[in-house]
Amino acid sequence: MTDKNKTDISTLGEFGLIKHLTENIKLQNPSSLKGVGDDCAVLDYQDKQVLVTSDILMEGIHFDLTYCPLKHLGYKAAMVNFSDIYAMNGMPRQLVVNIAVDRRFSIEDIDNIYAGLRLACEQHHVDIVGGDTSSSLTGLVISPTCIGEGEKGTIVYRSGAKDTDLICVSGNLGAAYMGLQLLEQEKTVYSEQLKEGKNNIAFQPDFAGKEYILERQLKPEARRDIIETLRDANILPTAMMDISDGLSSELLHICKNSNAGCLIYEERIPLDYQTASMAEHLNMNVSTCALNGGEDYELLFTVDLANYETVKNLKDIHIIGRITKPELGCMLETRDGQNFELKAQGWNPLKQQQ
Amino acid sequence: MTDKNKTDISTLGEFGLIKHLTENIKLQNPSSLKGVGDDCAVLDYQDKQVLVTSDILMEGIHFDLTYCPLKHLGYKAAMVNFSDIYAMNGMPRQLVVNIAVDRRFSIEDIDNIYAGLRLACEQHHVDIVGGDTSSSLTGLVISPTCIGEGEKGTIVYRSGAKDTDLICVSGNLGAAYMGLQLLEQEKTVYSEQLKEGKNNIAFQPDFAGKEYILERQLKPEARRDIIETLRDANILPTAMMDISDGLSSELLHICKNSNAGCLIYEERIPLDYQTASMAEHLNMNVSTCALNGGEDYELLFTVDLANYETVKNLKDIHIIGRITKPELGCMLETRDGQNFELKAQGWNPLKQQQ
Repeated sequence: MTDKNKTDISTLGEFGLIKHLTENIKLQNPSSLKGVGDDCAVLDYQDKQVLVTSDILMEGIHFDLTYCPLKHLGYKAAMVNFSDIYAMNGMPRQLVVNIAVDRRFSIEDIDNIYAGLRLACEQHHVDIVGGDTSSSLTGLVISPTCIGEGEKGTIVYRSGAKDTDLICVSGNLGAAYMGLQLLEQEKTVYSEQLKEGKNNIAFQPDFAGKEYILERQLKPEARRDIIETLRDANILPTAMMDISDGLSSELLHICKNSNAGCLIYEERIPLDYQTASMAEHLNMNVSTCALNGGEDYELLFTVDLANYETVKNLKDIHIIGRITKPELGCMLETRDGQNFELKAQGWNPLKQQQ
Repeated sequence: MTDKNKTDISTLGEFGLIKHLTENIKLQNPSSLKGVGDDCAVLDYQDKQVLVTSDILMEGIHFDLTYCPLKHLGYKAAMVNFSDIYAMNGMPRQLVVNIAVDRRFSIEDIDNIYAGLRLACEQHHVDIVGGDTSSSLTGLVISPTCIGEGEKGTIVYRSGAKDTDLICVSGNLGAAYMGLQLLEQEKTVYSEQLKEGKNNIAFQPDFAGKEYILERQLKPEARRDIIETLRDANILPTAMMDISDGLSSELLHICKNSNAGCLIYEERIPLDYQTASMAEHLNMNVSTCALNGGEDYELLFTVDLANYETVKNLKDIHIIGRITKPELGCMLETRDGQNFELKAQGWNPLKQQQ
């Protein structure tokens, strides 16, 4: 970000920068009446219900620019918000993005963040309709808000799971967490080489055979396809969440909100080969990683038992257990048949930095 | 914020903190179907259109905690967003607030920010329906998003002003900027006393007779009353904005978006006595302060000339000039009858810190 060929943001000013970033945006959705350029965006949702989700992503807390390219960061910031809309069985339609940057950042850097935001929006048919851009004394902040639509009667909350429902997850779990471990490991190697005075060597991180877990961390994909698959199969989940903090944590939310218990089977938790391989390399228990590793952005949902025959054949959807009576608690049955109580050990963004 | 009796945020954790902050929130608006506690808030706007506005407020850029109490900061963060909704002739209904805090902040500090947010929301009948809370490496960040409703056909954009329309402003201008100057001045005095080793004296800033400009800076009020006054008088503005960056800057936006010129009269710009008095004390031109000082959050709007008799009698609304043909430019007529071109010299949040 310190390249001398880059352009200082102050050359454009606030309105110049907003114009530069947004002038080529064409609104795609009929619900987007007015985008950037007035005091508010104006939307018309007609007979649809409106879903709103918002995040704040802080440099040094949620991302590390040592290994996270700005374009990927923009992409991920949008994607994690789309994921929250899908988790309500809705469709994302508009995105508002607030960004604050310090002096390290040039116009080209913000262009890169926007390139990632735009790519994510194109893929998910979402319009960028507004956003505030400011300077920061230290560090990059991205705060996206996504607005989406839900059909009346088909919005899925966390609270609808009931005894005997099947518990399902999409894709596989723990991969993003293993990707993060890999990046942290390479960062440590790199900084040790720097300490040893080898600062003019070309650092070559070794990512061969680990591309998948790396991509899961740096470029997560919100599971629109799963929402479409379920609709096509005429299945309305009884409860749903996206997995941002880890399977255990999310499942406990669903059980608490639904006043239910659950039983999931360790052997049913879907894992990718690279996730298992990386966990073994790090001497970590892969199931623990899959249960507690965050940022997979897969969907966790429950469906009525009557859907069993249909669900078990759906692509990339895995039945991992069932909802039980609340007095039975939230349990994990291990590969060797033992039962343990599920605990939320997911990532805590409020853990104070020492 | 460094009081030892205060409670460390990590004692609650993310979900505990969200629960602590939001458990007493009762949703007031029929359009708020589901607030905090799921992946998204769920809203139903039926036949209304949806207005969305969002800001990012950075410590050291937008506010200085040396003199801005946290409760006031929360109040202001909400209020500036409500103001954007009123500026579209809409009514704010929901607020989503993202907050990031560093290690200096305790639970009681966040409670204070929330107390300000809640007070603003109560006064304007707005529901807090969500928000993300995170830690920060350095500095406080508040990023609020407000959602409001507009009636079809009565949403007022920046682009509707036409030749001969009257230009009106609410309240008076420059007061918030003078309040900021006062606070900065007292901060300088205080830090000089500290430098001289007088760090155990009780510092008594001298605010007597300056309470109004201080309050305009620290506790701005969004002009819901003006929107209601105009509705009651059956007047629909042709264009409208709120004045956050300064009258000149906002008026240039309206003229540019409406493809129009304007002529305003210096003598018509409404000023408070304390604003004029402070400007004189600082040897500043009060009109320059009123034209370019930001953060007044008054409404600037244009109305058809046919409304003249009605508008001139409306409480706290001032006619300051008229819209002209675009080729005549954007002009200010001074008290001595000279004409100058209006220039935007408002505050630039992207000016890089040195």
